[in-house]
Amino acid sequence: MHTLIIVAHPEYDDSSTQAFLNRAQAALQRDNITWHRLSDDQPLNVALEQRLLLQAERIIFQFPLYWYSAPALLKRWEDEVLTRAFTFANEQGKLAGKQLGIVTSLGYPEAEFQVGGAEGFSLSEILVPFRALAHRAGMQFLKPLIINQFAYQTPGEQQQLLIEYQQYLTAPQPLHLQERVQWLITQLHHLQTQQPDDQHQTIELIIAQLQANQDHLDDLKDQIQLIRQAEEE
Amino acid sequence: MHTLIIVAHPEYDDSSTQAFLNRAQAALQRDNITWHRLSDDQPLNVALEQRLLLQAERIIFQFPLYWYSAPALLKRWEDEVLTRAFTFANEQGKLAGKQLGIVTSLGYPEAEFQVGGAEGFSLSEILVPFRALAHRAGMQFLKPLIINQFAYQTPGEQQQLLIEYQQYLTAPQPLHLQERVQWLITQLHHLQTQQPDDQHQTIELIIAQLQANQDHLDDLKDQIQLIRQAEEE
Repeated sequence: MHTLIIVAHPEYDDSSTQAFLNRAQAALQRDNITWHRLSDDQPLNVALEQRLLLQAERIIFQFPLYWYSAPALLKRWEDEVLTRAFTFANEQGKLAGKQLGIVTSLGYPEAEFQVGGAEGFSLSEILVPFRALAHRAGMQFLKPLIINQFAYQTPGEQQQLLIEYQQYLTAPQPLHLQERVQWLITQLHHLQTQQPDDQHQTIELIIAQLQANQDHLDDLKDQIQLIRQAEEE
Repeated sequence: MHTLIIVAHPEYDDSSTQAFLNRAQAALQRDNITWHRLSDDQPLNVALEQRLLLQAERIIFQFPLYWYSAPALLKRWEDEVLTRAFTFANEQGKLAGKQLGIVTSLGYPEAEFQVGGAEGFSLSEILVPFRALAHRAGMQFLKPLIINQFAYQTPGEQQQLLIEYQQYLTAPQPLHLQERVQWLITQLHHLQTQQPDDQHQTIELIIAQLQANQDHLDDLKDQIQLIRQAEEE
């Protein structure tokens, strides 16, 4: 699966959030992730942008939330690149079946985004224009990844964010427990190849333990299933 | 009351809708209406834009709906002009108590903007980012004026739109029957001053009739009120 990250931050070079996310995706060392930064410096090449979209199965809009929406930088891209013929699912649009994800960073506390809060509306409401776009294009809209006031996050929270972001880019979505474990095992296998030989055994043991836990969980589920069936008979 | 119309149409010169709305506001001949067209040609003068906002009691965002939102032209204006110190109601923002109205034109049928429709979401949902902005700024959010596929409207529908638009700019909002009649009477008085003398009497008669109808309605309401009170005793 190829993932295209469309990064729209008007003050990109000053954004510690974007720098962090960039390192997180680079650490995956995958050639099927494209980090595509938008800029106001040059006019958009619509054909090139559309080619990038065609190559991807998962498309991510990544931006800081400005006035309850994307910055003008991303809106201009939408207005120019997403032509009707290219986008409308009912007119043989080219995006149908792809996934649309949103990674957005908040400057104000996430807890205020609700009725009665300082922001007054939920993020599910605020992101309706993107949900409507996905609907029009016949795309699957992924559960957004919300980054809550990155600058105030503890190192532990940032580490958690790093994992969640990497999963958002590469793991099946929506992400259930079983896929989450499988994703971690894949990451560990990848890590193993980069470690000195004497570390291989340790990583192998961690993987075996994760796999055993998962098998044990699967067994328990099977047993519950059998008990339920017996009760029904 | 001063009304500021912020017009954001990337192809303004080709828009028959904007030309129509411009004639409609000009026909009112009011010096308390400002038609303020945004353009990508020059950088924004933030201080000047903020001065315009300060002078107005009613602020209207007027734009064609592009991808379930305003064009990038208006979003850039929001991102740059609406600074936190100027806007946040809880930090002595300058917009508190003013009204925010939306005049938006649709290229696709209004009837499709609902669950199960081709667009999938209502305009009340799609406009949440503007409702959230008004909420943050302590502004009164007016019922939006939706222009449904202007190019397909009959002359009668366009005439109706003209009146509704003029009322949206100048009449008290929300507009109840009594204020609607009062607004029409004011318009007729204004018209009277521009007509030759032999027309004055006709217009005077129309005004008298409108006023008499309104008085009659008020009388009926009073009688219903009295009957209700008698029943309760």
